[in-house]
Amino acid sequence: MDKLAMTDAIVTAKIEQKLSWEKIGTDLGVSPVWLTSACLGMNSASPEIAKKIVDYLALSPEVATALEAYPTKVWDQQVPTDPLIYRLYEVVGVYGETLKEVIQEKFGDGIMSAIDFSMEVDKIEDPKGDRVLLTLNGKFLPYKSW
Amino acid sequence: MDKLAMTDAIVTAKIEQKLSWEKIGTDLGVSPVWLTSACLGMNSASPEIAKKIVDYLALSPEVATALEAYPTKVWDQQVPTDPLIYRLYEVVGVYGETLKEVIQEKFGDGIMSAIDFSMEVDKIEDPKGDRVLLTLNGKFLPYKSW
Amino acid sequence: MDKLAMTDAIVTAKIEQKLSWEKIGTDLGVSPVWLTSACLGMNSASPEIAKKIVDYLALSPEVATALEAYPTKVWDQQVPTDPLIYRLYEVVGVYGETLKEVIQEKFGDGIMSAIDFSMEVDKIEDPKGDRVLLTLNGKFLPYKSW
Amino acid sequence: MDKLAMTDAIVTAKIEQKLSWEKIGTDLGVSPVWLTSACLGMNSASPEIAKKIVDYLALSPEVATALEAYPTKVWDQQVPTDPLIYRLYEVVGVYGETLKEVIQEKFGDGIMSAIDFSMEVDKIEDPKGDRVLLTLNGKFLPYKSW
Amino acid sequence: MDKLAMTDAIVTAKIEQKLSWEKIGTDLGVSPVWLTSACLGMNSASPEIAKKIVDYLALSPEVATALEAYPTKVWDQQVPTDPLIYRLYEVVGVYGETLKEVIQEKFGDGIMSAIDFSMEVDKIEDPKGDRVLLTLNGKFLPYKSW
Amino acid sequence: MDKLAMTDAIVTAKIEQKLSWEKIGTDLGVSPVWLTSACLGMNSASPEIAKKIVDYLALSPEVATALEAYPTKVWDQQVPTDPLIYRLYEVVGVYGETLKEVIQEKFGDGIMSAIDFSMEVDKIEDPKGDRVLLTLNGKFLPYKSW
Amino acid sequence: MDKLAMTDAIVTAKIEQKLSWEKIGTDLGVSPVWLTSACLGMNSASPEIAKKIVDYLALSPEVATALEAYPTKVWDQQVPTDPLIYRLYEVVGVYGETLKEVIQEKFGDGIMSAIDFSMEVDKIEDPKGDRVLLTLNGKFLPYKSW
Amino acid sequence: MDKLAMTDAIVTAKIEQKLSWEKIGTDLGVSPVWLTSACLGMNSASPEIAKKIVDYLALSPEVATALEAYPTKVWDQQVPTDPLIYRLYEVVGVYGETLKEVIQEKFGDGIMSAIDFSMEVDKIEDPKGDRVLLTLNGKFLPYKSW
Amino acid sequence: MDKLAMTDAIVTAKIEQKLSWEKIGTDLGVSPVWLTSACLGMNSASPEIAKKIVDYLALSPEVATALEAYPTKVWDQQVPTDPLIYRLYEVVGVYGETLKEVIQEKFGDGIMSAIDFSMEVDKIEDPKGDRVLLTLNGKFLPYKSW
Amino acid sequence: MDKLAMTDAIVTAKIEQKLSWEKIGTDLGVSPVWLTSACLGMNSASPEIAKKIVDYLALSPEVATALEAYPTKVWDQQVPTDPLIYRLYEVVGVYGETLKEVIQEKFGDGIMSAIDFSMEVDKIEDPKGDRVLLTLNGKFLPYKSW
Repeated sequence: MDKLAMTDAIVTAKIEQKLSWEKIGTDLGVSPVWLTSACLGMNSASPEIAKKIVDYLALSPEVATALEAYPTKVWDQQVPTDPLIYRLYEVVGVYGETLKEVIQEKFGDGIMSAIDFSMEVDKIEDPKGDRVLLTLNGKFLPYKSW
Repeated sequence: MDKLAMTDAIVTAKIEQKLSWEKIGTDLGVSPVWLTSACLGMNSASPEIAKKIVDYLALSPEVATALEAYPTKVWDQQVPTDPLIYRLYEVVGVYGETLKEVIQEKFGDGIMSAIDFSMEVDKIEDPKGDRVLLTLNGKFLPYKSW
Repeated sequence: MDKLAMTDAIVTAKIEQKLSWEKIGTDLGVSPVWLTSACLGMNSASPEIAKKIVDYLALSPEVATALEAYPTKVWDQQVPTDPLIYRLYEVVGVYGETLKEVIQEKFGDGIMSAIDFSMEVDKIEDPKGDRVLLTLNGKFLPYKSW
Repeated sequence: MDKLAMTDAIVTAKIEQKLSWEKIGTDLGVSPVWLTSACLGMNSASPEIAKKIVDYLALSPEVATALEAYPTKVWDQQVPTDPLIYRLYEVVGVYGETLKEVIQEKFGDGIMSAIDFSMEVDKIEDPKGDRVLLTLNGKFLPYKSW
Repeated sequence: MDKLAMTDAIVTAKIEQKLSWEKIGTDLGVSPVWLTSACLGMNSASPEIAKKIVDYLALSPEVATALEAYPTKVWDQQVPTDPLIYRLYEVVGVYGETLKEVIQEKFGDGIMSAIDFSMEVDKIEDPKGDRVLLTLNGKFLPYKSW
Repeated sequence: MDKLAMTDAIVTAKIEQKLSWEKIGTDLGVSPVWLTSACLGMNSASPEIAKKIVDYLALSPEVATALEAYPTKVWDQQVPTDPLIYRLYEVVGVYGETLKEVIQEKFGDGIMSAIDFSMEVDKIEDPKGDRVLLTLNGKFLPYKSW
Repeated sequence: MDKLAMTDAIVTAKIEQKLSWEKIGTDLGVSPVWLTSACLGMNSASPEIAKKIVDYLALSPEVATALEAYPTKVWDQQVPTDPLIYRLYEVVGVYGETLKEVIQEKFGDGIMSAIDFSMEVDKIEDPKGDRVLLTLNGKFLPYKSW
Repeated sequence: MDKLAMTDAIVTAKIEQKLSWEKIGTDLGVSPVWLTSACLGMNSASPEIAKKIVDYLALSPEVATALEAYPTKVWDQQVPTDPLIYRLYEVVGVYGETLKEVIQEKFGDGIMSAIDFSMEVDKIEDPKGDRVLLTLNGKFLPYKSW
Repeated sequence: MDKLAMTDAIVTAKIEQKLSWEKIGTDLGVSPVWLTSACLGMNSASPEIAKKIVDYLALSPEVATALEAYPTKVWDQQVPTDPLIYRLYEVVGVYGETLKEVIQEKFGDGIMSAIDFSMEVDKIEDPKGDRVLLTLNGKFLPYKSW
Repeated sequence: MDKLAMTDAIVTAKIEQKLSWEKIGTDLGVSPVWLTSACLGMNSASPEIAKKIVDYLALSPEVATALEAYPTKVWDQQVPTDPLIYRLYEVVGVYGETLKEVIQEKFGDGIMSAIDFSMEVDKIEDPKGDRVLLTLNGKFLPYKSW
């Protein structure tokens, strides 16, 4: 079973059981963002978590094996078209150099890791329109000379 | 004076006066991230803030006028090469569909605005390696039928 | 049922019943432009409107469920080839900077939303050749500092 | 004098004389949108209108000659980055096929001309946020067999 | 029946009946170039002509319906590879600016329509090698101010 | 003197002497289309014609030398943006395969040369709108086996 | 039978009968390079040669018909990845301008035809490593004025 | 002195002294093709040959130093536009897979080197039109396992 | 059996028999890196090694034939998205010119062959985090004049 | 002084003093590869090393300041053209998936860091042709769930 079939199986079960990523993640004690990325095939799960996910959704062990597989991460490198994803891309375009200035001023020459990394999504209720709060947390990796 | 000359003037003054974006922003009561983006020419400043910036850095009124101008936001749409900015782009590529799933599950069909939007950078000290914390805060805009 | 199958079902029913987007939209009390975009899979419908559409066309409830699903909006980002769509793209190319000048002169630094947005198509009869009238109506979103 | 120098001369005069495109267009009896596009070098002016513009702004006859020149219309064909122009491009991407369906249903096989064409921008005041109204008006050109 | 299946049906019948585009067009009183483009799916036929074509080739009424459908014109926008088509593309590249100069000198600021347009192919016999004669005939559309 | 400086010199002289490509070509006994392409730097002139052109326009012998030089033909391979040139490109896109069918039906497997080639532009006056007539004339080159 | 199926049939027969392009070409009295290109679908064969090929390989007459068909020549225009083909592409990149200089110095303004063209591959044995000898032979086509 | 200035100096001297690449190469005992590529900056010359070239053309020792420098080989990777170079590129596109078949049939799995490589251009006079003969000679490099 | 089916057969057998590339390579006396590339279809195996591989994995002789076939090496030339492969690509981008400087300083004008080439991967255990050691070993090929 | 001017100053001094990257690096106790990358502007130097470099080459303190600046790493993302760099790129294309298989088999799901990274170049003398040995050494970074 490849990652695509795995995602189909999980998403079908989630819809039939009227579950949300939020609820599955919270019930299993993992971040809903990470859980979603693993179920969409963009991260691998440890054997323990993979088993928890298939038990929770009553899926076959093959799904667990697919969740454990190390993914090849692929996306379309053209400019994203979906408006939600484009706005994130626009933020990187508009603020990318700003973030380089501010992060390297605070930390020195280096980068924020996208591997030793986590991310959360929160909802801030607001009478003028609710707000989305994205929090990205990545280890700083300094360049070294040799 | 166009935005490029404005950025040169500001960055030169900042280096000569041994200032940081952090200190200028804090002293003027604006976010260092927003301040940096305005000084790099990616946002316009109100007349009041523009005046504060040039007074603080002892620059000419022309710089204030350039800070007030509405920018045309331009970046190179090829995949970014600088490693710090690439890692941000990679996060959008790896987690873009995940964020669409999680945000629309929480908020309904719509997007996170990149216009009614703010962002902060914090440093979390950690003996295993300090961590970068990026916080993005954007208004949720729902789609409507008509 | 995914959006592609939904569009096939709707378009087939529309042709068999000799209906037009104009008539369906008017009879259901929604804009024919919005109706068309929802039926082509580029917008989601509320449960009420989705039900109205499938009742009107005598289609299955699965089609209603597909109409309610939040779409991932995708189009080919190469320059459009179909002459009707290319002419619209050409208008954005030729007049994009003009519109930026005129809109920001009238409204300040900001954008016209493509989310809080509607659009209509009208026909103006003219003995020298009928004319197409497109009306785009979007909320102005001002940039803010923070 | 080429179109770039012409635009510089006109924009400088407009800023010094604290004029707006709206006021210049209205005073000269032409649409502010068309006026802006001619002054940005994307349309040619008739000798009469070119003279009116340079007289109004007290510029040299060379500027009038440049306004009369037939432009080579050029824009960057990558996806636009400025958020105001991107939103217009997004509208063409999201609604291009919808407009093809609706226009050809109303008019038959053909296109909306971008040559025999005009466009207006209006502001609709609204307590929940002002709205931008764009009106595009183009002659319908039917395909013919031969 | 979509345009691809329609083209297959027509081309198969044409080969089996040992016909040429030239003969079909001449017998039906339409230009062989236009006929070919309609049969390849790049133009729509009127109901009368569509009926004539299917009667001539003894095909089903479904083919006529497909011939009447308004096509979405699509081609691959990379540089064409087939040498015959590349040479036409090369002519546009080498002579595009020349044609702009010469046409606008003769007609004023405007374009040659590709919609109100016809084209013919003729063979000029020549002992040094036969020659291809392409004739393009398009309505001139002048730009207007507004 | 390179081709760019040559074109500048010729175009300046042509404007000052209020000449047209049509008149220069006709007076010198060469096609105005070919003359324009040589003066824009896309074809080389024989020493005789180069001399005639500089004598006619009272330019220096250096211009003649530049006219004789063999050009490197360069154009921007993105989709053309100027509407006049785009319409020509659109014709190749829409009718390229049609022309391949019709030409190879008439001539066999091979191409129309863009090297042993000529082209003319004519104006057909018409009360419903004048028409542009482009005539392309290229030698047919058959493929050979070996 | 299209060209792809034709190539499959020929290559399968060639492998089963343990033949080489070299042997087939030599036995049939045509160049092995041309024979290979026709069998890969990049050139059309005359009815005589097409018959010889299918007789030699004991294939059906449909294969002969497919060999006679005029091909649409298509290749992927990205930079070639296979190292053997990339090295040829690299030669054009590194030596393209050199060849333009040397050929036009010898022949005048014009090109080497890729249509009236043949090519051979030979092996030169050498104790320091065998060498590949490619010979390209194309008619020179001079540009003409008109 | 960089390679660009070097090429300018050499080409200017060559034109003033009415020399050809053919003559310079033959007089100096090197291939005219290689000589041209070195003078255009695409190959480095040994100190002996570099000295011979500058002595022959009466140029400064700086030119010799620039000829000895190891070049960074750069070309525009878009499809070439100049018709002479495009035809070479077309040959690689049309015959690339054919050459892979024929070379690997003769030599085994490997490539023709573009480094241990030479090339010649010859003219074959022919009453039906002279022919260009290009000869490429490259060492075969076999792949190895390890 | 083509290379894709071959890879599927080998990878399935490897997983079922709980083998690693490391173990297969070591047991067969070939480098695990080379073995992996041959099994993924990017290199051809000699008949001896191909037989060893299928015997070891108990696969059919067809798999051996596919392993012997000369591959057409293809990869997607967009910037790689998978983070592991992107980091290798980033190293070439950041250090490509550095390596050109250092290698040509040591060896003269020429290249490191990617054909007469081998590569190894080693693991260096380290309490601060294990390290990956990649060793590339390629023959130096000097440019020659001719 | 920006990085470009810094590189010019360093390379000029290095040539005038007949130094090599090898010697400078060895004398200063840093890797010649790292030293070259810092001098080409692709890495920042610590204040101590920057001072050592300018003292060694007798350059101004401004060069040291430029060496300390955090670089924005930029390269052209088209496929590299220079043959030495292309071969490195080809290795990533041909062996990228192989390296992913082998590294992740040895280390688990994760990547080789290009930040906590070093690289060396060595020469292996060989009578059949010297060999280039590249050694890349990067920290393994495992993915984590959260």
